[in-house]
Amino acid sequence: MEEIDNILGYPSSHKIIQEKDAFSFSIDSTILSFFCEIKSRDKGIIDLGTGNGIIPLILSLRTDKEIIGLEIQKNVYDRARRSVELNGLECQIKMINDDILNVDKRFKQSSFSLVISNPPYFRINDSKHKNEIDEIKFSRHEYLITLEDLIKKSSYLLTDGGSLSIVQRTERFIETIELLKSYRLTPKRIRFVYPNQDKDSYVFLIDARKNAKSHGLKILPPLYIYDKDGDYTQEIKSYFHFGEKNDQI
Amino acid sequence: MEEIDNILGYPSSHKIIQEKDAFSFSIDSTILSFFCEIKSRDKGIIDLGTGNGIIPLILSLRTDKEIIGLEIQKNVYDRARRSVELNGLECQIKMINDDILNVDKRFKQSSFSLVISNPPYFRINDSKHKNEIDEIKFSRHEYLITLEDLIKKSSYLLTDGGSLSIVQRTERFIETIELLKSYRLTPKRIRFVYPNQDKDSYVFLIDARKNAKSHGLKILPPLYIYDKDGDYTQEIKSYFHFGEKNDQI
Repeated sequence: MEEIDNILGYPSSHKIIQEKDAFSFSIDSTILSFFCEIKSRDKGIIDLGTGNGIIPLILSLRTDKEIIGLEIQKNVYDRARRSVELNGLECQIKMINDDILNVDKRFKQSSFSLVISNPPYFRINDSKHKNEIDEIKFSRHEYLITLEDLIKKSSYLLTDGGSLSIVQRTERFIETIELLKSYRLTPKRIRFVYPNQDKDSYVFLIDARKNAKSHGLKILPPLYIYDKDGDYTQEIKSYFHFGEKNDQI
Repeated sequence: MEEIDNILGYPSSHKIIQEKDAFSFSIDSTILSFFCEIKSRDKGIIDLGTGNGIIPLILSLRTDKEIIGLEIQKNVYDRARRSVELNGLECQIKMINDDILNVDKRFKQSSFSLVISNPPYFRINDSKHKNEIDEIKFSRHEYLITLEDLIKKSSYLLTDGGSLSIVQRTERFIETIELLKSYRLTPKRIRFVYPNQDKDSYVFLIDARKNAKSHGLKILPPLYIYDKDGDYTQEIKSYFHFGEKNDQI
């Protein structure tokens, strides 16, 4: 059964259609949407594996540029497309139902200056968080796309100097760095995300630039999700209130 | 002119002989000394490029195991040796005046289970922080040893599963990761160090294990040097008071 939610929790934010009991958008997609840099000279923005379309929907609060969302699963794509319509954003956000592996047939090389993705975190042989529902399974585990293929296709899509911004599990950090290098993507900004001040990092945000020089890497201040009292930190709250309007009449 | 200081600032801590106007031990050596893991089964500990001997002196507060300090500069080595004597630690800390590049002539392969180093941060062609005084110059810039040679020699010295623990500038993070991999050293624990909560990381601490499997990397909670008021954080203060005794009579 579907339900309609506010993407950032407050009534005047964009709406998103989500399947109850399926893969609701996670906080990781939200922090990634605020981490990526959107430049005025950006040529094109694409979200690979957009799922419910949460990333394009949040990005549309930050920019007027056209955003493409690519989703392989027909039913998930369909829901994302309807969310775009629900918000009247058809002119800005274009949803496409296709496989990331097909991007080189669909788009010319160097067509985008920002590629963004919240890819599956787990390898197929990693038994953690396994789930039988297809929609959840494909979002969590690399059945349909591996991290290497995602990075390879992103490199194809990117202009020189263009940015790939992704979120991934910290356990796969070194592998991610190595894969980025193999496909000529140079890490420029990294931010480690921690559940709170006392725990190890669980995911990281990375912004790698195509064919960029290797000097000038920045490890940004850490991002904490919860404060000492178990509430969202001020930074996370600021995301959830981003663009909030006073809706009272 | 030389002066005698307390290594951790309080009267009952070990003493260190330092050259005024030369290279005083930095806070980076202190945090590295507390970051490295000392295991009960450790076979041997060596500090490569020990300088004034600050790292062995701090480590001797954490363990009774034998610690070797290697220093190429005769006058600096001599000062380190006298600091050891001043503290009556000749039985535990052995200072050696030699080049890191010679370790394979001096020690058998796999002789140590912990190699620690606070190496020069800057490449020779990096004009930042250049200084004409030899002692400072050799500590900051890679005139006498490059990061690659340091890692290569460390790998030679380490037992399987043994740890190389170093501190390095965050700007050289990716290069460090790649070099470690080239010499079969797998990063297991990384901690980014920040001047305070609002700034990017300036150095990082890394613990890489020889021939270890690649899964299980931990990015530990960040280490802040200063708090919002510009004072040392509680963690840094706890290092400076480590092992403090009440000296009053």
